[in-house]
Amino acid sequence: MSEDRLIALLRGIARHPGARGLMDDAAVLAVPQGDLVLTHDMLVEGVHFQSDDAPADVAWKLVAVNMSDLAAKGATPLGVLTGVGMARDDDWNAAFVAGLGAALGHFGVPLLGGDTVRMPDGAPLTLGLTAIGRAPPGGVPQRGGARPGDDLWVSGTIGDAGLGLALRQRAARAPAALIAAYCRPQPRLLLGGALAPLVTAMMDVSDGLLIDASRMATASGCAVTIALDAVPLSAAARAFAGATLDARLAAATAGDDYVLLFAADPAAAAELAALAATHATMLTRVGTFAAGQGIKLTDGGVPVPLPAKLGYLHR
Amino acid sequence: MSEDRLIALLRGIARHPGARGLMDDAAVLAVPQGDLVLTHDMLVEGVHFQSDDAPADVAWKLVAVNMSDLAAKGATPLGVLTGVGMARDDDWNAAFVAGLGAALGHFGVPLLGGDTVRMPDGAPLTLGLTAIGRAPPGGVPQRGGARPGDDLWVSGTIGDAGLGLALRQRAARAPAALIAAYCRPQPRLLLGGALAPLVTAMMDVSDGLLIDASRMATASGCAVTIALDAVPLSAAARAFAGATLDARLAAATAGDDYVLLFAADPAAAAELAALAATHATMLTRVGTFAAGQGIKLTDGGVPVPLPAKLGYLHR
Repeated sequence: MSEDRLIALLRGIARHPGARGLMDDAAVLAVPQGDLVLTHDMLVEGVHFQSDDAPADVAWKLVAVNMSDLAAKGATPLGVLTGVGMARDDDWNAAFVAGLGAALGHFGVPLLGGDTVRMPDGAPLTLGLTAIGRAPPGGVPQRGGARPGDDLWVSGTIGDAGLGLALRQRAARAPAALIAAYCRPQPRLLLGGALAPLVTAMMDVSDGLLIDASRMATASGCAVTIALDAVPLSAAARAFAGATLDARLAAATAGDDYVLLFAADPAAAAELAALAATHATMLTRVGTFAAGQGIKLTDGGVPVPLPAKLGYLHR
Repeated sequence: MSEDRLIALLRGIARHPGARGLMDDAAVLAVPQGDLVLTHDMLVEGVHFQSDDAPADVAWKLVAVNMSDLAAKGATPLGVLTGVGMARDDDWNAAFVAGLGAALGHFGVPLLGGDTVRMPDGAPLTLGLTAIGRAPPGGVPQRGGARPGDDLWVSGTIGDAGLGLALRQRAARAPAALIAAYCRPQPRLLLGGALAPLVTAMMDVSDGLLIDASRMATASGCAVTIALDAVPLSAAARAFAGATLDARLAAATAGDDYVLLFAADPAAAAELAALAATHATMLTRVGTFAAGQGIKLTDGGVPVPLPAKLGYLHR
């Protein structure tokens, strides 16, 4: 596929006037006065996705991982720019662009511009996406705002994507819900926006509940204790892998969850419960912050040693 | 180099408060109400730069090609996000980050955030940069705004970078000015901002004067005629390659110039001359737009056949 042909396909999904038909040097986006939230995440073939992943799933993930960052800051997406290292395969490119359009449509965010490049022969596909969002009116939650005494909460369930990935890698027959959790993460933008004024700190869980919670604790200058028996598992995960301590530890270190992890004053609990009901989601208290540093684990109130790995470790 | 170590280096050059110390999921940028100008360009090893290019030159180019897009829209840079596929070589990464800091400092634009990934072994380095700018108050010039009767102008000189690349590729002893034109393109942000209210169309010359002028003509629904004898050549280029028709054709099709190409009503000529003096630069009228379509060339008023290639062709 020529670069011109790929741009023509992208033009088909870039209908926002600010995209200028992808015919100009830059995009133009009208913004209200205030704070923007900006994020850029990359996906690389062989690192973040596999060569035989469906192109529409790769496109979904490229959009979703960035929407997850916006959700974690309570932001409302305004637009994205993409950097697309082209595949050698015309069908792949076409399916990727169609999937990109569908994913952007799902999250209601326009494609404003970007760049396309033909990678050298044999190079892995390399994709980047920049997402621009409007900050929530009350300020952008930090990763480092948790205070001693705060509770640690998580939205949704933990470990589904990790099971989905493991099962997919073994080509096993796996529950569709677990595969979907890995292939089609569902960042909760509206939930993030609603949580923003209630939290003292917020981030998304991308590398694993334990490692991401420890990062929040470190950034906040606090210690955190996580009750493994409180870690929320889905029905599909329980049915497939059980709910033993080992299963919970695996779930809490697997990563790819793209759920929201946040700290809140205990006084916010009732408001959080009401918000969970409004958004038809689960919000679960999984830990507490204290003065000090580091992460501790318990199970039924009994201390549990830390596992060798707290989550996905970048080399 | 570990990803953590690279992020620590990047943190050293990300001192804007909106970067949140590169410790958060996203950056936060306060913006005035109005239009933003957004661009994202990628550089890939083996495509846009070579493995033996100096890392600081690669960093400069990554920043400069995006600043050139902002300049072409008359925008004032507010910040950038980077997507860095890490090198396997620690020294390369360190020199790249130092060069990135120097380039961003030169253009006065803060690093706000981004992503780092370790590429699979043997993969080409892949770099992306998103630049966010504030639109000029009178509106963002389009690529497609030229009208029949407008003049076509170019800033600076044409062809220096092309000579620099050719000489560098042949490892020849070449004038430093030509090598620098290739390795360290100098987008003119202030000039772009000053030109914005005077032009009917504007873009940067990245792939070659002729191909980019033909793109402006196509986007504007006009024909364009370029006077090759008017194409401005630097003293270094004249001394090295002469000013024959062939030399001018080579200059006008070489690309990598990162100068401004713009259309303006003939009545703006006096104001443009004054602006050139203020900004200590050359602005040269190199052509005219007319009703119709396509690109024509002349030399001393005599028609010249189009060369086989109008500029750098993306595959």
